[in-house]
Amino acid sequence: MKFNLLRTDTISKARAGTISTGRGEIQTPIFMPVGTQGTVKSVPQKDLAERVKAQIILANTYHVFLRPGLEVVNRAGGIHQYINWDKPMLTDSGGYQVFSLSDIRKIKEEGVSFRSHLDGSKIFFSPEIATDIQRTIGADIFMAFDECPPYPCDYKYAKDSMNLTHRWLQRCITRFNETEPMYGVEQSFFPIVQGSVFKDLRADSAKFIADQDMPGNAIGGLSVGEPAEQMYEMTDLVCSILPPEKPRYLMGVGTPENILECIALGIDMFDCVLPTRNARHGYLFTSKGIINIKNEKWKFDYTPLDDAFTPEYSKAYVKHLIKCNEMLGATIASIQNLSFYMWLVQTAREHILTGDFMAWKKEILPVVMKKL
Amino acid sequence: MKFNLLRTDTISKARAGTISTGRGEIQTPIFMPVGTQGTVKSVPQKDLAERVKAQIILANTYHVFLRPGLEVVNRAGGIHQYINWDKPMLTDSGGYQVFSLSDIRKIKEEGVSFRSHLDGSKIFFSPEIATDIQRTIGADIFMAFDECPPYPCDYKYAKDSMNLTHRWLQRCITRFNETEPMYGVEQSFFPIVQGSVFKDLRADSAKFIADQDMPGNAIGGLSVGEPAEQMYEMTDLVCSILPPEKPRYLMGVGTPENILECIALGIDMFDCVLPTRNARHGYLFTSKGIINIKNEKWKFDYTPLDDAFTPEYSKAYVKHLIKCNEMLGATIASIQNLSFYMWLVQTAREHILTGDFMAWKKEILPVVMKKL
Repeated sequence: MKFNLLRTDTISKARAGTISTGRGEIQTPIFMPVGTQGTVKSVPQKDLAERVKAQIILANTYHVFLRPGLEVVNRAGGIHQYINWDKPMLTDSGGYQVFSLSDIRKIKEEGVSFRSHLDGSKIFFSPEIATDIQRTIGADIFMAFDECPPYPCDYKYAKDSMNLTHRWLQRCITRFNETEPMYGVEQSFFPIVQGSVFKDLRADSAKFIADQDMPGNAIGGLSVGEPAEQMYEMTDLVCSILPPEKPRYLMGVGTPENILECIALGIDMFDCVLPTRNARHGYLFTSKGIINIKNEKWKFDYTPLDDAFTPEYSKAYVKHLIKCNEMLGATIASIQNLSFYMWLVQTAREHILTGDFMAWKKEILPVVMKKL
Repeated sequence: MKFNLLRTDTISKARAGTISTGRGEIQTPIFMPVGTQGTVKSVPQKDLAERVKAQIILANTYHVFLRPGLEVVNRAGGIHQYINWDKPMLTDSGGYQVFSLSDIRKIKEEGVSFRSHLDGSKIFFSPEIATDIQRTIGADIFMAFDECPPYPCDYKYAKDSMNLTHRWLQRCITRFNETEPMYGVEQSFFPIVQGSVFKDLRADSAKFIADQDMPGNAIGGLSVGEPAEQMYEMTDLVCSILPPEKPRYLMGVGTPENILECIALGIDMFDCVLPTRNARHGYLFTSKGIINIKNEKWKFDYTPLDDAFTPEYSKAYVKHLIKCNEMLGATIASIQNLSFYMWLVQTAREHILTGDFMAWKKEILPVVMKKL
């Protein structure tokens, strides 16, 4: 994997670059649609590539491990073959889901014992196992197995958790270095900065992660309930420590506003379920502002949902479909929100390259965050 | 509307023709996908036109009347504009749903009082109201308001019901003739033969319906639980009475086998929820036979679901999606089943035109009905 940093903004810390992977290029800053169990919910792969213009999508290791399971993915020749997606993919390590979805879990030095949220069966994940699983899934980029502490958590918990994450990281890297990609395409490993909302811990963790000299670095444990200002403060601090020549991935973030603010702080990669989850509930991001399509005001509005992204369907029709829980409503709304997110980050990129990113951000934010 | 009968088979009574409507041609025999409340469940309009190659779709008057409601459709400029579908559409009269979905209903000479299955609100449909509603929805073909008797029902009930349907039909036609299309495109009216499974009633009804001299004729009240042989017998009888120069529409039928058998009896048009409903439950019609995709045998089958219709997704992947209740599974499966149905009727048409329909039917039925 190669990161080509094309330009860093002079007013902010925003960056435009290109990540080259074994399955093609990714233009940063980038948003990665979340394909939880091997499908970005309700969006066919063709639409994801051609309409949304997604350049990389994410799959969740925890979910894929449970269903369809590793043997199915392995015998298919990896996740890309299995789901018919030939562009880059990224897998998380499963850590986040182990801590958020599983009721019963026991964290030890060796790893985490937990029960499947589907059938209660006992599962054990360790840094080595999470690494092996991600080798088997076969994503182009894969993530360290970390503990994502809850918010709020006290200083001692955050520090102990961070240190455990660091020890786990070294075991992940050892295992990563001992193993090879299984399907003939390069895989890159990203470590994850933790440390909750404590500045000294975040700084320590960022230094530790930077020292691993991996091809990209991630920031985890944010957007878990803390105020946005605290998220920005931690992101800013960590970005000042992480090496500029490597891409920076802020995990699980966020709203359009969060994304533009964090691009300004030096983040290159984002993922979030927000656009697809909100879409299914009728909460739509458009080039003219935010629409709650369930609102009665759209009942007779026959103008396109968004001239830019979904010109063929009217607001009135999408309102009807979402209200009736028709699947086509979820599909149109998800294509709309993901297309908007992709447009947002790629337009940000253009403005970073032309040098007027901050002026554009100031102008566009009130437009796209306005409730219509 | 114009029906051009191109060829009638010499061995069977199968026919190939062309229906010309204000929104383009329909090549018969034809299958019409069911778009209950203004959407063929889980299939985007573009896929319906380009992949499935649907030539006409159906909407249910009862459902559209309840949601989104007539004012929404009317102010949109009719159902085609509203859902963004520019090919022909057909609406049923609402009669079938009034009798199948509504618990509390009261049939009088004037019409039917019933309660909405959604919110229990009181509604009254009469032949005149059903006609006016269908004028407002704006489909290219619309149907008489009839009573669809249950199966089984006794002779007296069937006869009284048929006579009521005939009286209602004359009121529908009077109203149809007194009114004009609302959106500048011709609308055609089809009466419906009833009479349950009683030969003399079916014959009486077919004569009565034929005498109305409408541009097409429908057969209702079949495929409601009676044995297939009885359905074929009634269809055969009615087809022998209905005029050959008008298209014949067998409502709510059926399996691929039912469709080929009824084409052989002289039917030109079909609609059924079977392909889309079965799709959502993982029951798939393919060019090589029937697949229950939930079966464990498909878990590691990475061959395309169907080379002909869904070559880009494997059986193993679709099994996973359907098992996980992922919407993409319903979309792929629905496109598969509808594409298969369209292929079936259009290939039947080709063989009617070349004169070897019955030989082809004999050869293809064991293939497509085989459980894989």
